Amino acid sequence: MSQRIGTTSWSGWGDPGHSRKLSPEMLALVRQALGLRDGAPVAPTLDELELPASRLSATALARLEEVVGARHVATGRRDRLEHLRGKSTPDLLRLRRRDLSDAPDAVVCPGSHAEVLELLAACAQQRTIVVPFGGGTSVVGGLAPRRNRGQAAIALDLRRMDRLLALDRRSRLATFEPGLRGPEAEARLRRHGYTLGHFPQSFEFASLGGFAATRSSGQASAGYGRFDERVVALRVATPQGSLELGQAPKSAAGPDLRQLFLGSEGTLGVITAITLELSPAPAERRYEGWSLPDFAAGSELVRQLAQDGPRPTVVRLSDEAETALDPARAGAPGGGAGAGGGCLLITGWEGTREQVRSRSREARRLLEAAGAEPAAGAGEQWLDGRFAAPYLRDALLDAGALVETLETACFWSSLPGVYADVRRAVVNSLSEQGTPAVVLCHISHVYRSGASLYFTVACAQADDPVAQWRRAKAAASDAIVAAGATITHHHGVGSDHRDWYHRQLGPLGTALLRAVKRQLDPAGILNPGVLV
Amino acid sequence: MSQRIGTTSWSGWGDPGHSRKLSPEMLALVRQALGLRDGAPVAPTLDELELPASRLSATALARLEEVVGARHVATGRRDRLEHLRGKSTPDLLRLRRRDLSDAPDAVVCPGSHAEVLELLAACAQQRTIVVPFGGGTSVVGGLAPRRNRGQAAIALDLRRMDRLLALDRRSRLATFEPGLRGPEAEARLRRHGYTLGHFPQSFEFASLGGFAATRSSGQASAGYGRFDERVVALRVATPQGSLELGQAPKSAAGPDLRQLFLGSEGTLGVITAITLELSPAPAERRYEGWSLPDFAAGSELVRQLAQDGPRPTVVRLSDEAETALDPARAGAPGGGAGAGGGCLLITGWEGTREQVRSRSREARRLLEAAGAEPAAGAGEQWLDGRFAAPYLRDALLDAGALVETLETACFWSSLPGVYADVRRAVVNSLSEQGTPAVVLCHISHVYRSGASLYFTVACAQADDPVAQWRRAKAAASDAIVAAGATITHHHGVGSDHRDWYHRQLGPLGTALLRAVKRQLDPAGILNPGVLV
Repeated sequence: MSQRIGTTSWSGWGDPGHSRKLSPEMLALVRQALGLRDGAPVAPTLDELELPASRLSATALARLEEVVGARHVATGRRDRLEHLRGKSTPDLLRLRRRDLSDAPDAVVCPGSHAEVLELLAACAQQRTIVVPFGGGTSVVGGLAPRRNRGQAAIALDLRRMDRLLALDRRSRLATFEPGLRGPEAEARLRRHGYTLGHFPQSFEFASLGGFAATRSSGQASAGYGRFDERVVALRVATPQGSLELGQAPKSAAGPDLRQLFLGSEGTLGVITAITLELSPAPAERRYEGWSLPDFAAGSELVRQLAQDGPRPTVVRLSDEAETALDPARAGAPGGGAGAGGGCLLITGWEGTREQVRSRSREARRLLEAAGAEPAAGAGEQWLDGRFAAPYLRDALLDAGALVETLETACFWSSLPGVYADVRRAVVNSLSEQGTPAVVLCHISHVYRSGASLYFTVACAQADDPVAQWRRAKAAASDAIVAAGATITHHHGVGSDHRDWYHRQLGPLGTALLRAVKRQLDPAGILNPGVLV
Repeated sequence: MSQRIGTTSWSGWGDPGHSRKLSPEMLALVRQALGLRDGAPVAPTLDELELPASRLSATALARLEEVVGARHVATGRRDRLEHLRGKSTPDLLRLRRRDLSDAPDAVVCPGSHAEVLELLAACAQQRTIVVPFGGGTSVVGGLAPRRNRGQAAIALDLRRMDRLLALDRRSRLATFEPGLRGPEAEARLRRHGYTLGHFPQSFEFASLGGFAATRSSGQASAGYGRFDERVVALRVATPQGSLELGQAPKSAAGPDLRQLFLGSEGTLGVITAITLELSPAPAERRYEGWSLPDFAAGSELVRQLAQDGPRPTVVRLSDEAETALDPARAGAPGGGAGAGGGCLLITGWEGTREQVRSRSREARRLLEAAGAEPAAGAGEQWLDGRFAAPYLRDALLDAGALVETLETACFWSSLPGVYADVRRAVVNSLSEQGTPAVVLCHISHVYRSGASLYFTVACAQADDPVAQWRRAKAAASDAIVAAGATITHHHGVGSDHRDWYHRQLGPLGTALLRAVKRQLDPAGILNPGVLV
């Protein structure tokens, strides 16, 4: 039984070979700026950890093995640890405190829709909890189910379901199984001249199924749109049977039930096939940096670009604090957009040579007229470091810092207020806790009617950093809900946002969601505690 | 009690002042071509009609009057007839056969969200059926509820709820009540420099709430998108309470519950406020006609325009038959795209002067390279007649013709097959019934991955033309489902498409929809028989 099922780092972010260290100078600077204390627990080694005994009975385990084959069921320590929670800072902090209580009892890897269906039926009968698992990059507590005492839980790892099932060139559609990771999907499509244009920070590790189930949005969303907007059809396995949804580009045939599974975060079923719209792979890509006077002026500029164009493929506007201290650019000489302060704007352009040339030229005219100055090299620098920030977090946690991000989206008219309110809530909460914070922010997803705000927060770890962050995050979430912004633009709800999500849905919306859940998962085995 | 609540024609399409007559020459031509027989029943006059007695008890009626005020409840003959069914050809044929069995027992006009909520609660208690009523332009049986013997039904006419509740210029959003008709909404927005860009054939009479509840798509969808894509937020009144959905341009907060109410066709609740994205009113509009060799070549061309641009604001490609005999252009000398046959393509361009100029010029190069020839005047002619076709239907029905439309959408790769299969199914069904048909088709909504197909069918009325059409329509719907296309691209499901809709949803999808319905409308009073 149970050959090991390899994955990425179980104790930190991503590929262990790419982990980053802080230079001694940077470490000294951060220690001083945040007032870090020595002695924060570091990530454990495998040997020092003792997992709770498996709660799966021998009979239950045998039934799962019967469905997928014994070699696709893993119960070893490392496999279970690799499927322990996600990659939020609280997740990493709990591991550093040797809290292994959420580890699944087995990792089960089905190879087909039929096997997923059979697994779900078997687990419903056993009352075994099922956590659908793609890349494991959740940062909202989406992979740690609430279980009853003694109840077994499995991670349903979809990595074996990684086929390109169909490619329809004329309609520019591809149908994938859910387990394919971002880079591999891109590589397969590039061979045919296509791209999904979907590059979230988790791109290297997250899976297509995860992108769909969490309504992921990538760094190039201004140009390529969100992942959920590309989903034309879905096949879903639930404990109650299968669903095939989506026959046409658009339809007026009733409520759009695909929209229940997009964003369902493994609570309503398992997406086993996704048909996605493709874009032509760009012939040309250009990334530029601009220095703008301030965040308010920059916000107005990106609003204009989003509403009237030319719409860049990538838009990222850092506020003054992030510009001065961009963690992804921490090694850069001088840091930020230059000695003069201000705000850094990254604009990316992708498309045909002619499109890139004409659109970036038109934007340049608008930007220069608004007082923007070129920030040489900043565009390429952003591109080089676009997936690197989470690695830095591991090093900062080692040094005793608490570093975490949170995000929201709102309409343009309320953006200045949301920005100020959320920032203040976090700053105040962490000050009150005796750990003054640095709070950075950027706009990275723009729409005709509004934009996202993405905050990075850094301070010293308190004695109980999980509780410390819980309070700060609650203050931020309260501010978001009070301001009428969405509790999450692209991280998802998980268990971390659940209560605020219900406040935004209202009692009837929450009851409606529960009715949907009851219909599809009457035994309540699918990712309990997430969303509902 | 009961002052009259005026509306558009109760016995045919639209504004009675705009009704069209066939010229004697045209009439002779149509009679000969379709083999029409004399003696088809014409539309009745008001005086000859006897309505079934109201099934609302005095107590029930008094309760409704209590909620909205007596002067907003109408029970007169004309009011009830004005809310009898919708505007499909079978609806008109039933009226011509003096079948008044679906008439509501009263027409109730609430003035606010609170009144709608209270009405729904009262009706749930009384078990009175509620049919939410906007413009009354349904062509899919969306306004004739299935009732139990003796059960009362009211039309909930939303015309009094016609306010612009909020305008947010910075975010380019407007919040409307649902009862506003298309032209009035446009007029109010144009004053501020905006448009919704939503011009379905029902534009002049249909309401914003109806557009949302049926996932309407307008003639300019290639440029402005579909109506449902503009909906950012919704307020809904249900028998179980209120919902407020939508806080941001986009969100990753779970399943998108707005998508349950878009397309809900009055079965899950009543939309009482809609927040919509606005577009700048175009400074320039240009419409052009092109003659293309054939429908296959034309489809390839519009696919290119849809996928790689320049994407027109309006795209309408008629097949050979429609080009030769376009009902909207029946009076034009020579008809169609010219003596040479081929296919007529309409391209419309809206935007700034520079956008219209550069895009239409680029498209011209592509079109000419593909062998397209300008069809002088065809663009303007289409624009003039864009809302007129349904008026012609009344005249054709009088002459003994059966004229109806049906539509679907599919991916580009399956479009030739769907076109051929649906056409064949309709032609065969009507031939077998002894009434050979003329079948016309056009593509009028294009997407990156596919397009809509819109069929117009004309033949002689048989003795029972409702049954005659039911058979032909069933054959077409079977062909649509067999080909994997959607049962409706923009007409909606109503009761006419319900069975095929359920086949496409599958048993679990249908059960899911029923679970949603049960949660929101446990008494089943909202538009029963529609959708579910």
